[in-house]
Amino acid sequence: MTTGRIICAGLGPGDPDLISVRSDRAIRAAKHVAYFRKPGRQGQARRIVDGMLLPDAVELPMEYPVTTELPFDSAEYNDLLSAFYDDWAARLEGMARAGQDVVVLCEGDPFFYGSFMHLYVRLKNVVPVDVIPGIPGMVGCWNASGQPITWGDDVLTVLMGTLPEEDLVHHMQASDALAIMKTGRNLPRVRRALEAAGRLGDAWLVERGTMPNQRLVRLQDVDAADCPYFAIVLVHGHGRRPVAGGEE
Amino acid sequence: MTTGRIICAGLGPGDPDLISVRSDRAIRAAKHVAYFRKPGRQGQARRIVDGMLLPDAVELPMEYPVTTELPFDSAEYNDLLSAFYDDWAARLEGMARAGQDVVVLCEGDPFFYGSFMHLYVRLKNVVPVDVIPGIPGMVGCWNASGQPITWGDDVLTVLMGTLPEEDLVHHMQASDALAIMKTGRNLPRVRRALEAAGRLGDAWLVERGTMPNQRLVRLQDVDAADCPYFAIVLVHGHGRRPVAGGEE
Repeated sequence: MTTGRIICAGLGPGDPDLISVRSDRAIRAAKHVAYFRKPGRQGQARRIVDGMLLPDAVELPMEYPVTTELPFDSAEYNDLLSAFYDDWAARLEGMARAGQDVVVLCEGDPFFYGSFMHLYVRLKNVVPVDVIPGIPGMVGCWNASGQPITWGDDVLTVLMGTLPEEDLVHHMQASDALAIMKTGRNLPRVRRALEAAGRLGDAWLVERGTMPNQRLVRLQDVDAADCPYFAIVLVHGHGRRPVAGGEE
Repeated sequence: MTTGRIICAGLGPGDPDLISVRSDRAIRAAKHVAYFRKPGRQGQARRIVDGMLLPDAVELPMEYPVTTELPFDSAEYNDLLSAFYDDWAARLEGMARAGQDVVVLCEGDPFFYGSFMHLYVRLKNVVPVDVIPGIPGMVGCWNASGQPITWGDDVLTVLMGTLPEEDLVHHMQASDALAIMKTGRNLPRVRRALEAAGRLGDAWLVERGTMPNQRLVRLQDVDAADCPYFAIVLVHGHGRRPVAGGEE
């Protein structure tokens, strides 16, 4: 019997038409499909592939054991998550050893802040693992903004809204273009940091980029109590002038 | 007569299987296909779609007027390029007004350091323009490296090798993960900056990521005289610990 493969299919930013040809093919042919979700939710990854799965595909929802009940930086939270990834890695390994291919759905690009990497490090030297890249969520968001994010020699910095405020300010001052993820309840901190860095006036909030109900709004016009979940904050670069001695 | 559309199709990192479903469909149906290239070359964008175009598709190679004959930061170079973009914007506008749709091919993602944006700013308020995002080249490169580029709260900074050395060093010290583009003849400067920032030992050179002849090598093992063209330098993040008070 041939060992099966674990195939992580990057899904891109949300519009199923923006899935790559290779991921699309893998998803439509999959007999076993796994995806992360919060307990009790359909989950964003599963929602993106609605209507694409084989009628008899076996679905394996991998439900996070905790979300916000425990502090994100506690030892207890980390232990619970590690056990969760250990358990699913063992189950996927077992399926591959039994000759089954399993497609694991992953929003955006799997190697860019994706949950799949926790399975990847556990499985990559154990069973065959293929990773199909995807369009990162931030790329879908800057596309939705209708403006190029970077020109010429612009520096782009990708920041998490979870960072300390002073770190955010420092990076926001040093970079031309910015993409800030994990906003949600961190949005007030992100906003204060942008203001301190003198960039708030240029910041856009993109919610559900490339999805049917996408929203694009200037961050300074967003109500302070409004903390959308699938949202990225963008500051566009304006084309840093090439320097003497530089070349394309 | 209905006005035609200018459709910029992001091509992704190089493997035609990594083009999005929407771009793939637009390219295969296109009656007019435009793409940038250096004079006398087939061009990377056109090479990616080899075998995908309709047999009677009309091809419009947009050949850059200059490449390395003039200094990149000279007024003469900028004037020549501006006239080139003005000219092609006028030709594409004329085709759209004559009712023709034109698909413009663009490597990677069109809004991420792409040449298309120079046509986009000239055309977007003049004729209908659609931009289809793509997987950026750097995403293909970190996929080819077989390692996640970012984890947890890592900061990712995207830098151009054309930047002054001291700017490079500063950003390389401040960021967890790095993607450095426009390497080529700037590679010696990039290397010196990585060394000064203490990051050279962790740097990888990815040449032609996702393409059949891709090459992955530690930058410190690359011969100093070796300046590959389609190459990106990567430094992977290792998962910055979430901070107290942060949340996912």
